[in-house]
Amino acid sequence: MVKMIMHGCGGAMGQVITGLAAEDESIKIVAGIDLHPAKDSGYPVFESLDQCNVKADVIVDFSSAKAVDGLLKYCSETGMPVVLCTTGLSEAQLETLKRASASAAVLRSANMSLGVNLLLKLVKDAAKVLAGSGFDIEIVEKHHNQKMDAPSGTAIALADSINQAMDEPYGYIYDRSTRREKRHASEIGISAVRGGSIVGEHDVIFAGRDEVVTFSHTAYSKAIFAKGALEAAKFLAGKGPGLYTMADVVKL
Amino acid sequence: MVKMIMHGCGGAMGQVITGLAAEDESIKIVAGIDLHPAKDSGYPVFESLDQCNVKADVIVDFSSAKAVDGLLKYCSETGMPVVLCTTGLSEAQLETLKRASASAAVLRSANMSLGVNLLLKLVKDAAKVLAGSGFDIEIVEKHHNQKMDAPSGTAIALADSINQAMDEPYGYIYDRSTRREKRHASEIGISAVRGGSIVGEHDVIFAGRDEVVTFSHTAYSKAIFAKGALEAAKFLAGKGPGLYTMADVVKL
Amino acid sequence: MVKMIMHGCGGAMGQVITGLAAEDESIKIVAGIDLHPAKDSGYPVFESLDQCNVKADVIVDFSSAKAVDGLLKYCSETGMPVVLCTTGLSEAQLETLKRASASAAVLRSANMSLGVNLLLKLVKDAAKVLAGSGFDIEIVEKHHNQKMDAPSGTAIALADSINQAMDEPYGYIYDRSTRREKRHASEIGISAVRGGSIVGEHDVIFAGRDEVVTFSHTAYSKAIFAKGALEAAKFLAGKGPGLYTMADVVKL
Amino acid sequence: MVKMIMHGCGGAMGQVITGLAAEDESIKIVAGIDLHPAKDSGYPVFESLDQCNVKADVIVDFSSAKAVDGLLKYCSETGMPVVLCTTGLSEAQLETLKRASASAAVLRSANMSLGVNLLLKLVKDAAKVLAGSGFDIEIVEKHHNQKMDAPSGTAIALADSINQAMDEPYGYIYDRSTRREKRHASEIGISAVRGGSIVGEHDVIFAGRDEVVTFSHTAYSKAIFAKGALEAAKFLAGKGPGLYTMADVVKL
Repeated sequence: MVKMIMHGCGGAMGQVITGLAAEDESIKIVAGIDLHPAKDSGYPVFESLDQCNVKADVIVDFSSAKAVDGLLKYCSETGMPVVLCTTGLSEAQLETLKRASASAAVLRSANMSLGVNLLLKLVKDAAKVLAGSGFDIEIVEKHHNQKMDAPSGTAIALADSINQAMDEPYGYIYDRSTRREKRHASEIGISAVRGGSIVGEHDVIFAGRDEVVTFSHTAYSKAIFAKGALEAAKFLAGKGPGLYTMADVVKL
Repeated sequence: MVKMIMHGCGGAMGQVITGLAAEDESIKIVAGIDLHPAKDSGYPVFESLDQCNVKADVIVDFSSAKAVDGLLKYCSETGMPVVLCTTGLSEAQLETLKRASASAAVLRSANMSLGVNLLLKLVKDAAKVLAGSGFDIEIVEKHHNQKMDAPSGTAIALADSINQAMDEPYGYIYDRSTRREKRHASEIGISAVRGGSIVGEHDVIFAGRDEVVTFSHTAYSKAIFAKGALEAAKFLAGKGPGLYTMADVVKL
Repeated sequence: MVKMIMHGCGGAMGQVITGLAAEDESIKIVAGIDLHPAKDSGYPVFESLDQCNVKADVIVDFSSAKAVDGLLKYCSETGMPVVLCTTGLSEAQLETLKRASASAAVLRSANMSLGVNLLLKLVKDAAKVLAGSGFDIEIVEKHHNQKMDAPSGTAIALADSINQAMDEPYGYIYDRSTRREKRHASEIGISAVRGGSIVGEHDVIFAGRDEVVTFSHTAYSKAIFAKGALEAAKFLAGKGPGLYTMADVVKL
Repeated sequence: MVKMIMHGCGGAMGQVITGLAAEDESIKIVAGIDLHPAKDSGYPVFESLDQCNVKADVIVDFSSAKAVDGLLKYCSETGMPVVLCTTGLSEAQLETLKRASASAAVLRSANMSLGVNLLLKLVKDAAKVLAGSGFDIEIVEKHHNQKMDAPSGTAIALADSINQAMDEPYGYIYDRSTRREKRHASEIGISAVRGGSIVGEHDVIFAGRDEVVTFSHTAYSKAIFAKGALEAAKFLAGKGPGLYTMADVVKL
């Protein structure tokens, strides 16, 4: 059984992961880290990793960009594997992360869900076949009305994945209302829809002459990210230093 | 049987209407108008309405903005009903059109299809109920890669129709990538997707707390605009002066 | 402020309603009824309505078919308004319910969500316009893999609502694999998809010549039924005897 | 330039292929075969292959099951490559086809479109990853109201392709209305929607815990089958004996 530390255990995702882990016999949260611990979750909670004296195999992080610096420092020094799910990291932090992966196993992905990571692979395969046959590529993503940024990081990740299949990378277009011209073949249009409490939907559209192929992912709750994080933790426990992604976990 | 003149009979839509009318026993094209007549279509073709000496009940127009001036002048003078399907009219032409409707029946709609005109009515009904209950409204439209403008006139017409149900009109947002803020309640996001040979798709999305209602229209060929134009012609024949729309035809 | 009794407060939906009511200042749960009370919910819980001595304006019921007999008897005798959300009632119980509505306000709907009740109205309006123009009608519903019955009660309710617009009611077709013939115009095909944890999706499809109009509802959590039940309770408090539905609440 | 014979040139698909080939500089129809030749198509038409004295590299067939016997006999004897698009072949004919492939290149696919053949490959890849993680698989197909059979051959082909990824093949379920039980994990539900003039839509749905991945293909006209047939013809010209499919053409 894998022993994990939940970094950011007091947050919403930390609590979801705590709930899922309690139902999973192959992994156990042995300690939590949070400045503001939530209600009793069945494991000891410490204010920082340095204060934590519990032995573990892996850390799962859903904290805040601010807390990531200390986390990476700790993992570099101890070689403890870490699944890093916090988003919005700065360029400097991404650099630190890369350096940390020289001494510890570090896994990071734009989206932790199994389905999205499968799509990241398959849209690349599709682009190889369809882009050469005159299919245009568009992405539409939908999220709740509290989301600040647009388009979503996952939409960008899908477009980036498609571009890995191209000889010449396609440009991204976010707005067609300001110009009056035909679509260019070598662009990916990305549209962002915002409304209600939509958890997250992504459509990747390949539109050709008289036929359209669409790849869609719909998330119904944030539990899928929690589930993905636990799978990643089980995978990462015992792994040597290096940079990993969810693609390694789902063996695509 | 209604006798109609096809104004712009040599164009793509003129030919589609000619084909459909040939299968319809309740209407007959008795003459066509076009500077560049196409292959023989089974009726005499004249270069202008003034040269046309065939008696008819109604004119259907799918020509060009340039040809509309002469058309409106002719209808004003003769009182001949006209179904005006040409798009991209100038403000001045829209004024002329309004004046012409004082002496002839003039029907004009952003989209001639039965399905779209039904949606124009129903999304207004939906907005009355849902907007007050915290549902956000978004529109996504998809068209082929040759379309120059975005968003489509039909998408704007759908948004305008929704706004007729509002105490205070909502603003339209075409791009969320340039700002970093939460969605405002009193806006309608409109996204334009372009690709392949997509004839025309429109989704009107009402996204609330944990539920989403979507109204969708998909066009599979331009024949639906031809069919709508013929229905409009049958409706308009014999009607007195006035401004009509497809909503009158489909009796919503 | 409306005072309500939660009948079946220990069940999953009873707990969701308890949570939502706590956030709503215009309604307050003053007592709960349940044989097996859950954890403390902030109000007194009784084993039966007869034992409950708390004054209230309305009862909301999400219990079991077995518990409905006593509930209807109580409301008949006391004239207390009741929002009845329990499904799977027998024919005899539906008869009792109708009789109870002679002495108390009784509200019952196949689906408590605002969006579905709006669709029930709009698909009827659409059918009036489209069925006469040769559009075929199909319904596709999707639910989680634990659902026992197919098609869903909401799918049937949507079809029934469409039939109210027809001169001659359409028949329902659930399987086309066993016969080899063209579709009949006067039928509604209803398909049931089952998989994963899908909360509930319904598509009502009007497919015509070269155009398709689709009305879709997606539920993301059961909270929408709880929310609808609270809105119904506020509406029903103070109402005289009679049979009500959600259509009265959402004023369609 | 590839020289091809159009077998069944007088039919609807034969005429669509004729139109497309006229725009394509890398292939040319040098003769047509049909008992009832249509209007002049720019090439000589013969009543049978035996009467045809024009040299060619490949035959494309869109005729009728009845005409396929003579076609296979001809190809067996002459070694002429053939793209066989006629559907509804008997078991005996499929046997003959297999034997013919010993002496000539024979290509046959349930669906000639590039997009569908891509999906046939990708849904198999997806099933390998997702079926093991508790995702349920469902297929929904939509076709026009004149289609006699259900579900479509393409829907079955998609399910068959998924089954190639399974250790134990899943069963197919066409109707859930007649039984009252939970979904079984090892089944693929296949639903058939019929209406209007829908050319052909296929959704392959992988529904998991709180997430759904959907692969969709929409055909807007039969031209995509014509285009696929021409691509297949170019690929097959000059190939030696053997059994080929569109998967070979699109190099998936």
